[in-house]
Formats: sequence, structure tokens, C-alpha cells
Amino acid sequence: MEDSLRFEILGRDPNTMARVGRLITPRGEVVTPAFLPVGTRGAVKSMAPWEVAGIGFQMILANTYHLYLRPGVEVVREAGGLHAFMGWEGPILTDSGGFQVFSLSPTLKVEDDGVRFRSVYDGSEHFLTPELAVRVQEELGSDIAMVLDHCVAYPASREEVERSVETTLRWAERSLRAHTVGGQALFGIVQGGAYPDLRARSAELTSSLDFPGYGIGGLSVGEPREVMLRCLEVQSAILPEDRPRHLLGIGDPEGLLEAVSLGMDLFDCVLPTRMARTGVAFTRQGKLNLRHARHARDHRPLEEGCPCPACTCFSRAYLRHLHRVNEMLAHRMLTWHNLAFMHRLLLDCRRAIGAGRMLELIREWEGWSGRQPS
Amino acid sequence: MEDSLRFEILGRDPNTMARVGRLITPRGEVVTPAFLPVGTRGAVKSMAPWEVAGIGFQMILANTYHLYLRPGVEVVREAGGLHAFMGWEGPILTDSGGFQVFSLSPTLKVEDDGVRFRSVYDGSEHFLTPELAVRVQEELGSDIAMVLDHCVAYPASREEVERSVETTLRWAERSLRAHTVGGQALFGIVQGGAYPDLRARSAELTSSLDFPGYGIGGLSVGEPREVMLRCLEVQSAILPEDRPRHLLGIGDPEGLLEAVSLGMDLFDCVLPTRMARTGVAFTRQGKLNLRHARHARDHRPLEEGCPCPACTCFSRAYLRHLHRVNEMLAHRMLTWHNLAFMHRLLLDCRRAIGAGRMLELIREWEGWSGRQPS
Repeated sequence: MEDSLRFEILGRDPNTMARVGRLITPRGEVVTPAFLPVGTRGAVKSMAPWEVAGIGFQMILANTYHLYLRPGVEVVREAGGLHAFMGWEGPILTDSGGFQVFSLSPTLKVEDDGVRFRSVYDGSEHFLTPELAVRVQEELGSDIAMVLDHCVAYPASREEVERSVETTLRWAERSLRAHTVGGQALFGIVQGGAYPDLRARSAELTSSLDFPGYGIGGLSVGEPREVMLRCLEVQSAILPEDRPRHLLGIGDPEGLLEAVSLGMDLFDCVLPTRMARTGVAFTRQGKLNLRHARHARDHRPLEEGCPCPACTCFSRAYLRHLHRVNEMLAHRMLTWHNLAFMHRLLLDCRRAIGAGRMLELIREWEGWSGRQPS
Repeated sequence: MEDSLRFEILGRDPNTMARVGRLITPRGEVVTPAFLPVGTRGAVKSMAPWEVAGIGFQMILANTYHLYLRPGVEVVREAGGLHAFMGWEGPILTDSGGFQVFSLSPTLKVEDDGVRFRSVYDGSEHFLTPELAVRVQEELGSDIAMVLDHCVAYPASREEVERSVETTLRWAERSLRAHTVGGQALFGIVQGGAYPDLRARSAELTSSLDFPGYGIGGLSVGEPREVMLRCLEVQSAILPEDRPRHLLGIGDPEGLLEAVSLGMDLFDCVLPTRMARTGVAFTRQGKLNLRHARHARDHRPLEEGCPCPACTCFSRAYLRHLHRVNEMLAHRMLTWHNLAFMHRLLLDCRRAIGAGRMLELIREWEGWSGRQPS
């Protein structure tokens, strides 16, 4: 399977583990570090695929859990796969569905063979096995698939996390055996909760299976920032240097920059798009909350200098008005802006790595999440 | 005020009263007959203004009622008027707010001077007078404004309708006196319920005030189709031939074509965009309801040959899926498609008038509303 994906490291930051790379898939290249917009149900909420590509994104993530339940994999397969179904021509990464099973669904039981859960849509019972997760992703036709992992909530006891690491490893072996479709790369996933030694064990065991890339799961789920970074650091040092690493589910700018400095290449998160729908715009000066009354007569753009249509065509006052009357165009425009913000952040990262100033970039963004633009 | 608007008739259908015209406003020309997408709250729901213009629309309608209550006329005025506020550079027609006051709000009392109502947003009490309706529209800065009219529900007694015709006339006189802003044309409105003789009286009295254009209100509110057409015919024969006529609130294709053949020039209606949000696509072959299970595995476009992105990029199965999980992109794409459908319908109208085959066009569309595409 490794042949379906190549990863070249193009440059490194001399003071951190950050690197700029190029992920070459059969459907095109992805320059890393990269943020993947999340197309939860086969669409990046409110955005047309050509708009997502127009911002500059080269790869998106789609959720196997949602597509498996609605519209079902048969419909997608018949349409010629997920790319044809949703009109996205570039690479697609699918998750295994595991995270949603463990976080969204009333999980009935984790068994040796998989996990029994009820659909969040209609309560129907399903049994997701490592083999089924692989088969569904093969039928969806994504370019990068993920093995089913056993997720635990935070905090979890050492015993629980040990069990999760072992189950995840066993499922990874089974996933590899089940994976037969060429042209699709299957990534392993490492777990280990908030225990650095279990993080190390998971990285060692999983990387011994020689996956073409690795997802790092179970972080940013409530543990302190320093614990997360320590866990990442431990795993980054163990995972093979020449394979891409995807930090699953992290999208806050400060955390993302730290993770890049620890050698992470790929990111995805619903945070920027979810915040957009609550009226919050990400700007370099901080988070701008359009629900605040002070924007009612603020005729400036969301962010000076931002090239997105929300900023070049509309004012804060207008977007606040639209948000207040729950007009879809507000959700669209803020989603567009926040995605454009994320793309620019990643461009800055790549430039900083090339210039050997990743640490400076991290310092510049320190405290961002507590700031508000004037 | 007439100088702010010119109307030229470019061609006529020899067998009907249909005409092709050109409405020249300070912000650009509008070829008629034309359909005006409705930007209820300062946005055509889900659509960016450049997308609306890209379909081919030259003028939109905005609702004074909604903008007066949210965000308030002060905010729009400060922004430099409605065009600047919402990013629409072409002509804008605003209604007077009357229809919404009478149909949406708990109307407290119609008085000689105006109508007392409660806001649909927060229940606050407001008093809308003909002078206030003019002033608000002047501050919004629309290119065509409408006088406040007295709307009655259907069915209404002869006495009620007589009173509505008289009140509307008196308010029209007051509106004319109040209207002072150059560059904006003020249209009169004719009423008359479902009584052809009262329709005639309203048209005679109102046209004696010499407005630069006329809105025809209070039709398609439940009366039989033949009654509506009879009322339209009566008024069309009386209203000055050289002024544009706007049939308010009609958007079903069959009714619209009949109205064009009776000399109507402008149309607006939320029907095509509202239906879109319920999963219904307008096609030449009939109404396609994506909620029907038969579209679950229908990988054809909504409508073969339609140039809109919903049809060129996506399948019925995909759009049905998105609609089913309430994804905004479905509402957007169906809205786009239905607006593109309306624009093509009006283009066909203009062509048919030019070719002298308006009656054939009406015949081709007969029974459309009862049809479903395969």
C-alpha cells in the first residue's frame, strides 16, 4: 500500500522538529504542514468544493461514521466514490469512524472484534469492526484511510488507557490484513491517553507495523496543554521521521503551531467552521465575536487585509445583522473567512519553517486565544 | 421624480399585451419582463450578491419591513445605503412594508394616518404611516420605492375592499407629497381585491396621480386563477401603457406567463427560493421533490442542460443526501438552481415576445405545476 503515497521532506526548521513536506497522492499533491477542512457529511458545511479549493486547500477530511449511516456507502459507491459524489477532485482523507462512535453515539459495548453502537440518526444498532472500517473507506474511495482505533475519554485510568493502546494495536494489525485496495494509503493510529510512557509504547508498537503514515489520536480532549505537548513530543521522537503524521482534531492556532514545531504535518478540526456558525471570526488580532453589540454599527471589515469575500465585500455590521436574523449567508461568509484564516496560518508556518523562524512564529501567536481585535 | 427612471418598450407580442422593455435606473438597466429575487433581510437567502448577478439578474427586491426592524434604518444609512450595506451594485426595488405588516405582524389597528402593528421580532409596537414608509425607503436608498398600501385578506367583503382602495389612494397622495429624494422612483400601488370593478376604480384613481410605475397588489392571495387574470386584465387596460407594472408576489411559472401576456413587466416572489429550502427543484419537466425516496440513488443532475452549479457539479442523490441531513449547501444549491430556472423562464418570455409566440409559450407551460420529471 505504501506505493500509493509518497512523502518528501522539503525543508526543516533548525530549532524545532517542524518540517515542510510534500504528500504525493494519486489525486494530487498536498504541501505540509496542512490543515484539512472537515467535510463531515460529504460537504464542508455551507461551502461548495470549488470554494474550498479556491481558498487554497488541497485535501479535505470526510467522516466515515456519518457517510456510513447517511447516505450509506452503497449510494456513494454507485456514484463512483466519494470524490465524484461530492464533487471534490483533490485528495480526501477519511477517518475510521471510531472517534464519532466513541464520542457521538450511545456506545453499547467494546468487544474484542469491534464496537457496538447506536446510530445518532435513528438509534439503529451497528457493529463496527476494523475490517468493516477498512472496507467502508475502500468503498468510499478515499486517498488516505485510517485504522479503527479504541478511543477513551479524558480523564481515564491507566488500566483503561493500557487496554485502549492494546486494542488499537490489535485492530491496526487486523486493518492492515483487511486492506487490499491499491491507490489508497492506510494510516495507523497511536493512542496512549495522557500518559507519556503509554504514548511511547503505542508509538513503538504501532510504528513496528510500518504504516505509510500515522494519525495521533486522543489528544486535546481536556488534558492540560503541557501534557498534550509532552505526549506529542514523546511520540514524534519515536514515529518514523519519513512518514507523515496527522494530529487528529486540533484546530486552535496556538496548539497547532506548537504541534507543527513538534513535527506534525496534517491537521483537521471542526473548531474554525463551528465557531463561524456561532458568529465568531478568527482574525490575526484575536477572536471577533459578532454577537457583541459593539459591532452593530461597525462598518469595518472583519479583518483588514484578508482577501476572503467576507472581508472584501461586507462589513462587520452587515455580517452581524445577517447572523442575528440567522441568515445562511452569515454562516457561509464566516466559515469562508475562518477557513481562509486557517489556510493563511499554515502558509505562515511553511514560510517560518523555510526561514528558520518557527519559534518566533509561536511567540508571535502566544496569548492569541485570549485576545479580541479592536 | 419621473426623471430618475426611464422605461422604453422595445418590442411587443402581436397576439397579447406582452411587451419587452428596458427600465433605465441611475444604477443600471433592467430588461423586462424580469423576475426580482427577494432579498428579504438584506440578502437573497443563502446567496452572495455576485452569485445572484452571475445568474443574470439585474435588480433585486428588499423588504422594508424587515430592514426597518432589523438592523434598523440608521445602520443601513450609516453604511452608505442598502447597496453598500449588502454589496449589491445594481438597482434595488423596496416594497413599502405594508404587505408584511398586514400578513406577518399582529396588526393592531388601521387608522386614517397609517397602521399600528407589533414587530414579528420582539413584539415592540410601531406605527407605519405613508410618510414613514417613504422616508425609510429614501434612507435605504433603493432605486424604486413603493407607496404604503392597505392590504386586505381574501376573501374580503366589498365594503372592506372599497375601504382598502380608498385608503390606498389617500396614502398614495400623501406618499407623493412626502417623497423628496431624487434618483429614486416612487411607484403607486393598485388594489381592488377580487372585484374587477373595484380593480378598475383603483387603477383609474391611482393612475390619475401620474406615478412613474405601478405595483399591482393583493392578487394571488387565494382567489381562483381566472379571477386573478380578469382583475389583471382590467387593470392592465387602464394603467398607462408607457409605465412599468410590477405584479407583486407572483412566482409560479404558469401564473407569471399569463401575467406577462397581460402586460406585466416586473415580478417578485419568495416561492422559488422558499421551495428550494424544502428540497423542491423547479425544472422544465415539473417540480422535482428531493424528499422522495426515489431520488436516493438517482445519480442524474436535477435538470439536464441547466447551466447552474447544482446541475453541473452534483447529482440528485447527493443533493437529496445533503437536504436530508439539513446541510446548508443543499439549500444553497437548490436556491441557485430555482433562481436560474426563473431567469431562464424570463429569458424564454422575452424571446417568445420577440418572436410573436407568447401564446405558444403559455400553452407549452400549461399544467406544469402538476408535473414531475422522470
